[in-house]
Amino acid sequence: MIKAGIIGATGYTGAELVRLLELHPEIETIFLDSRSYEGIRFSDIYPNLRGKVHDTCQSINVDSVPEDTDIIFSALPHRISQSKVLPLIEKGFRVIDFSADFRLREAKIYEHWYETKHLDDRTLEKAVYGLPEWYTASIAKAGLVANPGCFPTSILLPLLPLLKENLIKNKDIIIDSKTGVSGAGRSSSEVNIFSQVNENIKAYNIGKHRHTPEIEQELSLAAGSSVNILFTPHLIPVDRGILSTIVMSAEGITRKDIEACYEAYYGKKSFIRILKEGYLPETKAVKGSNFCDIGFVIDSRSGKLVVVSAIDNLLKGSSSQAVQNMNVMFGLEETAGLNAAPIWP
Amino acid sequence: MIKAGIIGATGYTGAELVRLLELHPEIETIFLDSRSYEGIRFSDIYPNLRGKVHDTCQSINVDSVPEDTDIIFSALPHRISQSKVLPLIEKGFRVIDFSADFRLREAKIYEHWYETKHLDDRTLEKAVYGLPEWYTASIAKAGLVANPGCFPTSILLPLLPLLKENLIKNKDIIIDSKTGVSGAGRSSSEVNIFSQVNENIKAYNIGKHRHTPEIEQELSLAAGSSVNILFTPHLIPVDRGILSTIVMSAEGITRKDIEACYEAYYGKKSFIRILKEGYLPETKAVKGSNFCDIGFVIDSRSGKLVVVSAIDNLLKGSSSQAVQNMNVMFGLEETAGLNAAPIWP
Amino acid sequence: MIKAGIIGATGYTGAELVRLLELHPEIETIFLDSRSYEGIRFSDIYPNLRGKVHDTCQSINVDSVPEDTDIIFSALPHRISQSKVLPLIEKGFRVIDFSADFRLREAKIYEHWYETKHLDDRTLEKAVYGLPEWYTASIAKAGLVANPGCFPTSILLPLLPLLKENLIKNKDIIIDSKTGVSGAGRSSSEVNIFSQVNENIKAYNIGKHRHTPEIEQELSLAAGSSVNILFTPHLIPVDRGILSTIVMSAEGITRKDIEACYEAYYGKKSFIRILKEGYLPETKAVKGSNFCDIGFVIDSRSGKLVVVSAIDNLLKGSSSQAVQNMNVMFGLEETAGLNAAPIWP
Amino acid sequence: MIKAGIIGATGYTGAELVRLLELHPEIETIFLDSRSYEGIRFSDIYPNLRGKVHDTCQSINVDSVPEDTDIIFSALPHRISQSKVLPLIEKGFRVIDFSADFRLREAKIYEHWYETKHLDDRTLEKAVYGLPEWYTASIAKAGLVANPGCFPTSILLPLLPLLKENLIKNKDIIIDSKTGVSGAGRSSSEVNIFSQVNENIKAYNIGKHRHTPEIEQELSLAAGSSVNILFTPHLIPVDRGILSTIVMSAEGITRKDIEACYEAYYGKKSFIRILKEGYLPETKAVKGSNFCDIGFVIDSRSGKLVVVSAIDNLLKGSSSQAVQNMNVMFGLEETAGLNAAPIWP
Repeated sequence: MIKAGIIGATGYTGAELVRLLELHPEIETIFLDSRSYEGIRFSDIYPNLRGKVHDTCQSINVDSVPEDTDIIFSALPHRISQSKVLPLIEKGFRVIDFSADFRLREAKIYEHWYETKHLDDRTLEKAVYGLPEWYTASIAKAGLVANPGCFPTSILLPLLPLLKENLIKNKDIIIDSKTGVSGAGRSSSEVNIFSQVNENIKAYNIGKHRHTPEIEQELSLAAGSSVNILFTPHLIPVDRGILSTIVMSAEGITRKDIEACYEAYYGKKSFIRILKEGYLPETKAVKGSNFCDIGFVIDSRSGKLVVVSAIDNLLKGSSSQAVQNMNVMFGLEETAGLNAAPIWP
Repeated sequence: MIKAGIIGATGYTGAELVRLLELHPEIETIFLDSRSYEGIRFSDIYPNLRGKVHDTCQSINVDSVPEDTDIIFSALPHRISQSKVLPLIEKGFRVIDFSADFRLREAKIYEHWYETKHLDDRTLEKAVYGLPEWYTASIAKAGLVANPGCFPTSILLPLLPLLKENLIKNKDIIIDSKTGVSGAGRSSSEVNIFSQVNENIKAYNIGKHRHTPEIEQELSLAAGSSVNILFTPHLIPVDRGILSTIVMSAEGITRKDIEACYEAYYGKKSFIRILKEGYLPETKAVKGSNFCDIGFVIDSRSGKLVVVSAIDNLLKGSSSQAVQNMNVMFGLEETAGLNAAPIWP
Repeated sequence: MIKAGIIGATGYTGAELVRLLELHPEIETIFLDSRSYEGIRFSDIYPNLRGKVHDTCQSINVDSVPEDTDIIFSALPHRISQSKVLPLIEKGFRVIDFSADFRLREAKIYEHWYETKHLDDRTLEKAVYGLPEWYTASIAKAGLVANPGCFPTSILLPLLPLLKENLIKNKDIIIDSKTGVSGAGRSSSEVNIFSQVNENIKAYNIGKHRHTPEIEQELSLAAGSSVNILFTPHLIPVDRGILSTIVMSAEGITRKDIEACYEAYYGKKSFIRILKEGYLPETKAVKGSNFCDIGFVIDSRSGKLVVVSAIDNLLKGSSSQAVQNMNVMFGLEETAGLNAAPIWP
Repeated sequence: MIKAGIIGATGYTGAELVRLLELHPEIETIFLDSRSYEGIRFSDIYPNLRGKVHDTCQSINVDSVPEDTDIIFSALPHRISQSKVLPLIEKGFRVIDFSADFRLREAKIYEHWYETKHLDDRTLEKAVYGLPEWYTASIAKAGLVANPGCFPTSILLPLLPLLKENLIKNKDIIIDSKTGVSGAGRSSSEVNIFSQVNENIKAYNIGKHRHTPEIEQELSLAAGSSVNILFTPHLIPVDRGILSTIVMSAEGITRKDIEACYEAYYGKKSFIRILKEGYLPETKAVKGSNFCDIGFVIDSRSGKLVVVSAIDNLLKGSSSQAVQNMNVMFGLEETAGLNAAPIWP
């Protein structure tokens, strides 16, 4: 059994990871770290896990991590995460980090968007961006995997093949994403009070969302040239789910071109479902799973290609993607522990 | 007192109209027509109106409409509406029609998008498009007002001044709209079952929504040239509200330009609220009212202008806009009966 | 015009009061007090009121209250409210208090349930319990009105006539109430985070909710003997609304008895709607209004009477009830400013 | 591998069963019957199952059922189900029926409450009521299992041990249940339109719900005397979940008594979680699982015992309970295929 530990286990992504690892046939979870809930039974915080998870939260530091730990997940927020993760890497532990701290290849860009210092920019070179459909080989041997952001996952998976194959241009890519409220986490603030967000639809952080540089970095690498996007996130009153509606020029491409491109890249991937003509993704169809659904329409009237993707923001957008990364790192079946189909309704 | 009658009163827009007219100081509602609910008390269908509305539904036809009726609202679906409205106009009644039957100036375009014959295309010339912020003078003397669609209202109000003043170009306008479920009406179908749409986000009818030609017609008139849009509607699990996120090139324009433009067109309008810098519309802030909130951001990184608008789809998107039209038609205060502020939360 | 001021205006009940007073034909609001939002425009906190309410929050104390203020509403939480309200009463201002601080006639009971000292128990004798359907005469001349709790309002209105007329017994009254999340207010805590309460149904504070003694006090006064209840509140993922399902023995009573009793007490009341046989209250039918809907069933199989009531917790359960109280205090029409019908859907 | 077929597979409970059987390590699903969707891919109806379930719906009758079918599930509505199930039993197939057609031991009671004839009342004697925590032995050898109703499951599991052990009396049991909307199924009617039930709380069918006789039958069997209840169901705007709040006299019992009773009956059961003091069930904690959570409070003020239970209405209230029954019937681990923990949030 592979021995796993989780730092910052009591947020929503941490808790989903705990649930997934409990189901996983090859994993034994050996510690759940939490500063604020030290000494509290995990299932007293997450009552869904009663009778399933018997651990009590511990406050762990680099010296108290058991030496035989095979993999450490950090589900801490950015800035705090690097301060915890750097000493662990130093000591030789393999780490999957959920925060933004190791996703951007240039410290400058990180520091600009996140308005904080990076503590060790040399790690940025070694960190592997954990999108397993794209970086399988590097992830397999990585010591530090930077688990992608939720919006980026929903945007990169549909766009990367199209840019890689030069089917679309590197400009005028308009991205309108909608996310459920769990993306704001479990700490209380006016932003996620039920009565403020329920029965409400709104846009926020237009052009300024911190996931923007991460999206542009990966799109640019695929395109081989600088890609610049407009990214508008919206908050929707559902627990989970991201739907991204991405518009770009359809000049010179046909439905067949795109179908062939997706088939080539994703035809054999377990978690990407390309929808046939006439069908479009919806978040309910992926909720609770590691799937990313992708559908598209070419609108000849306007000359635009519209690609729509749907993921569960806490799973393919975070925790189950981390488990998929771990499966790749340890040579397991990529789907191990991730077989559950979404529930409906 | 002005005497009003409603044909097709028992759908959501009809019922909202009944509620608004009951509040209106200058209106007496003299009949509520419904074929399917004939003989049923209106407040047995809409329990919110118990003690407020005492009428019973009648099945009315052109011959049984009281001669002293001053204004007739038709809240019937397209196709059925024209067959009822045409004889009423013939007889000289003034009519506000909620359907799409008289919105498009060309019968051909109507017939293409709605896949049905128009029964009398000569009426299309006489019908006035009922966007009261734009067509006040014509509405005032109109015999037939075509009340705008909900999506078009949310899109035209922010875009018309910008096109009219040539601040933006007539192409590459990308519109991503989100609507609450009441837009699908009160008749039951799998599309509006709670369990199918709750906890779900999805796009539908990409590039094919029937409101497209209506939007393009009015934008083109304002621009003085043919405007072509991409319109993607989404379904969101809230009762009410439309949020439209509209992206276009920001080339050559500044925040000040747009603020000045909106101030010139809407500074004195009662129902348009232009938000100051740093604020963005949200549907909850307009729910239950005739307001249209508009905010915008210029993203210098991508060179795009993002305009966001919010309306209540059943009110400014339908029934209260109809009352506003009626106020204009009868020389009343434009705000008469429409003073209620939205409730929060 | 009557001059009104609001202390603690920025919570949900305060904001609803601001909205209602703006609509009220005989009221001028002269100050909106808030410590935490001093200097902030009220409509920047509550965007629904943009263009409607132009005031900026001030931090007011007893010495800065304008002398010509006719009525002061305190929408502060219990304990803090009495410390602000007592000096105002001392100075001769008429006050309507939204908190629990003046609802209970015995300081001991207050101190037991609210676990805090009462600062001046002599005021408890003078305070009038502000249920306008029951205490009209005393409210009319009151200097201090204790506005009822939301659950108590939904429970007292249906039960008081039945107990007053001895139609039901004073024991084995089982009350199961369900409330929307706005009852938890606008301050953020894990209790009202969207993701914790959405898609969830739960009971809380069984037998321990602080509204219990207030309910029992008023029921006992009506019955002329001590009434003891079991009260179980539940949290439901809606913005607004309380539905109370109240079960008691139906021994010796018929549907006619209850109908006659309600007709006698409420037949002429503007805001109580007694539903006819075959209909039951639902919260959506009262949302946004001052109505209390009451319906009932006698189940002969079990020998029980089930009475169901519905109110909007922020309105008849708080702010609009306060306006109704003010109307009574100043000899206005009881319905002044409260005419809006609920919206549907 | 055990060969299973499903009749009436396209409703919500049918679809959940399809999902569960796909996950089950020992089951092979050999047919999915549907009259209305014949020839349609199942995953085109339930997009959550894309890539997981590849079957196409067939219209199956008694003669076309493959002879080597080991178990047939009927997820048809009552009345229709018996007409399909009776010939299958006749032919010797083992059947688990989801409808009410075989739950009541007396045809008369069935006919009274369901207002339809029973086609073969001799089967009622042979049918086993499929509450696996109570009838394990009979289920193991049953030819026909009547899968319990959703409300009954949530009510029987907490009450049966208390009645069996005479801890509580057989009268004055007041049950207030709240259900999510998926209980109304997937066929569209005004009852389950989003806009009618969202942001709404209501009671329905007070004292008349068809699950009443089923609850009383099983409670009476446990008590050894006739038990009569008052059952009030409520509709709550969530996808899934039933919370039942059950009130009865606490005379002569202590917390310890009840804890000991539950420990004796359920201490070793996999799917019943008894909550410790200070904790209460919530539907979100069981959603997506086969768990039934039970908590309770003794309120000494009123002398009442309040027991609260939570289940997922489509799972423990239907489809996963059916799988649990099947596991018992075929001597498999009771938990086979049912290991998934609920997701949160």
